[in-house]
Amino acid sequence: MSSVLSDAHLTEGMRSVFVELLVHGPLSRAEAARRLDLSPSAVTKLTKPLLQNGYLLHQPSGDRSMMGRPSQPLAVDPARAALLGVKLTEDELFAVRTDLRAEIQHELRRPLLSHAVDDVVTRIGEAVRDLTGSGQPPAALGISLAGTASGGDPVVPTSPFLGWRDVPLGDLVAAATGLPVVVENDVRALTAAQQWFGAGVGRHSFALVTVGAGLGCGLVIGGRLVSAAGRGTGLVGHLSIHDNGPLCELGHRGCARAYASSAAVRRAVASTLDRSDLTFEACLALAAEGQPAARRIFEDAGHALGQVVATVANITGVQLVILSGEAVAMYDVCAEAFDAALTAHTHWTSTPVDVVVKPFTFSEWARGAAVIALQHRILGR
Amino acid sequence: MSSVLSDAHLTEGMRSVFVELLVHGPLSRAEAARRLDLSPSAVTKLTKPLLQNGYLLHQPSGDRSMMGRPSQPLAVDPARAALLGVKLTEDELFAVRTDLRAEIQHELRRPLLSHAVDDVVTRIGEAVRDLTGSGQPPAALGISLAGTASGGDPVVPTSPFLGWRDVPLGDLVAAATGLPVVVENDVRALTAAQQWFGAGVGRHSFALVTVGAGLGCGLVIGGRLVSAAGRGTGLVGHLSIHDNGPLCELGHRGCARAYASSAAVRRAVASTLDRSDLTFEACLALAAEGQPAARRIFEDAGHALGQVVATVANITGVQLVILSGEAVAMYDVCAEAFDAALTAHTHWTSTPVDVVVKPFTFSEWARGAAVIALQHRILGR
Ligand SMILES: [Zn+2]
Ligand SMILES: [Zn+2]
Repeated sequence: MSSVLSDAHLTEGMRSVFVELLVHGPLSRAEAARRLDLSPSAVTKLTKPLLQNGYLLHQPSGDRSMMGRPSQPLAVDPARAALLGVKLTEDELFAVRTDLRAEIQHELRRPLLSHAVDDVVTRIGEAVRDLTGSGQPPAALGISLAGTASGGDPVVPTSPFLGWRDVPLGDLVAAATGLPVVVENDVRALTAAQQWFGAGVGRHSFALVTVGAGLGCGLVIGGRLVSAAGRGTGLVGHLSIHDNGPLCELGHRGCARAYASSAAVRRAVASTLDRSDLTFEACLALAAEGQPAARRIFEDAGHALGQVVATVANITGVQLVILSGEAVAMYDVCAEAFDAALTAHTHWTSTPVDVVVKPFTFSEWARGAAVIALQHRILGR
Repeated sequence: MSSVLSDAHLTEGMRSVFVELLVHGPLSRAEAARRLDLSPSAVTKLTKPLLQNGYLLHQPSGDRSMMGRPSQPLAVDPARAALLGVKLTEDELFAVRTDLRAEIQHELRRPLLSHAVDDVVTRIGEAVRDLTGSGQPPAALGISLAGTASGGDPVVPTSPFLGWRDVPLGDLVAAATGLPVVVENDVRALTAAQQWFGAGVGRHSFALVTVGAGLGCGLVIGGRLVSAAGRGTGLVGHLSIHDNGPLCELGHRGCARAYASSAAVRRAVASTLDRSDLTFEACLALAAEGQPAARRIFEDAGHALGQVVATVANITGVQLVILSGEAVAMYDVCAEAFDAALTAHTHWTSTPVDVVVKPFTFSEWARGAAVIALQHRILGR
């Protein structure tokens, strides 16, 4: 049986119906037709090969009518294909196996002991083997990492923390695994996951702002993930906040990263309290307990984040910003400062920005990579 | 003879060929086919009705071959239809009549003595009559103004300087003139003109940053003008530059507008030199002559502008920024400060931003409105 997802002859119409059902399903035939501005009979024709190939199925509907199958909603069968996602950090590799709706089924985490390209490719190959096991071969593999990678280009132009320049990672991993491979910036991959399976579903435009080791920002504008060949997007980390603030690693005074990265917050609390042993989590706990200096440092971080979010919304016009990232839990102790800065910096002619805070686990990064693989596989880009 | 530009049955394929020739022409049939990923015979088929209707013509090619017509490049006949554009400011109305390639043929400028909606509609109607005269009726009218208007919606949600809220300007003017009318934010309209007929031609993504009474920013991302329903985009005017800067009208200390708007620069030079009579142009002349205080104030403006441009490029990923607006001549006396700030604030992982400075005349605003009308008329959106 041919795999539709690897079929180059998948028509534009079939793609549209499949994506609509994947993202918004289950949908009745009539509802799918309405959403896609097609006739119900066109939907029937377009979905037929997808039903035959098992990508779609008829979902038993709750209210049983006498009308039989046509009233049963159409849905994607999430078990029809598997996806793999890998996220590379400076010292670790995270990998997940997901179903077609990007639900994580297996995950693993491995140390990355070397940044040599061959070693990293080998480690990815091992993770792919371990996650594939004796199950069906995955339909595609996505790899995400910080840096200027952008979907569709197998070459990583720059990845500062791996010390890479112009590494053809996609082709190397494809050769090693036999899988179709897509490489993408990690924040954009996370944004893609929110676009199809998260708080961004149904939104024409939105931004995802991440806080963790650094600050990041992914953008969906006009329904499309924003990408710039060989260039970053959403580079908000060094936005100026105050003239007289703390220093970031690059020597900027008072940039957003100097206030709000998990390392900056940890450093500030640890040095103020003269306790170099404190982890970020311990600092967060101190602030939550009301330790005044810790609290103030987190409030400053919240202020910087609020200003970042307002600036992104002012420039791009997005009305929804999703907050995420490893250190997003800081929002709980700085929501007031965040909201105040967001309000103060939102342009006076604009309606307020909707903010959704998304609890974060590290495997979300790898899941984002799986979604990027899915998008490229289905949309053929 | 039916007008193709008002023909609802204009196919997607015909649109693509027409836009390609309008923006990039003249092109040989082979070149047009290559650019559009079509066969030459498909181009022949698609262009036939446009040639019959006079929208396209065969341009005599410089090197005469024996092969006759097929070697003659195809081009849009700019005289085939006329467009009107109107820009409203707080106290004036600017209007232009252009050809199909947005070349200005006639222009006029009238005081706007009242902000009452009926009066403004009447003034626009008069301008339309005066510009139409006994010539062919224009194909469409575009109206641009500051505020949250966005193309496709005939209602102006907010226009602060006119004191308007939810004014159905498009419908009112359409009823008064009998023309198809499109209303758009003025900066976006100017950006559209650069996208099809200016420095943005051939660029997938770029930004236009304007400096004048305020600061503005229009964005083209992924080939499309960025718009947000009921919301502004490119709102860079109140971006924080320094904690201890001058005040803007809204009471922000050190925002971009407080440094770089023409009014802010004028106020700063006039008060420093205790010469309230100075116009912006006189201040610019003083800075150009080397008057140290004037020079420093323009340098501060240049610094703010450079930081604005870098922030826009960091967030959106654009690699080209066009500088324009009524006060863009200030660039000449602050280029060094601008460049230094742009470099300092461009994210360290990004390639340098290309900046194009576009000399400005006020009728450019109205021309932008004409281009918006053209885009909506042709692209049917
Ligand atoms: Zn910094
Ligand atoms: Zn301000």
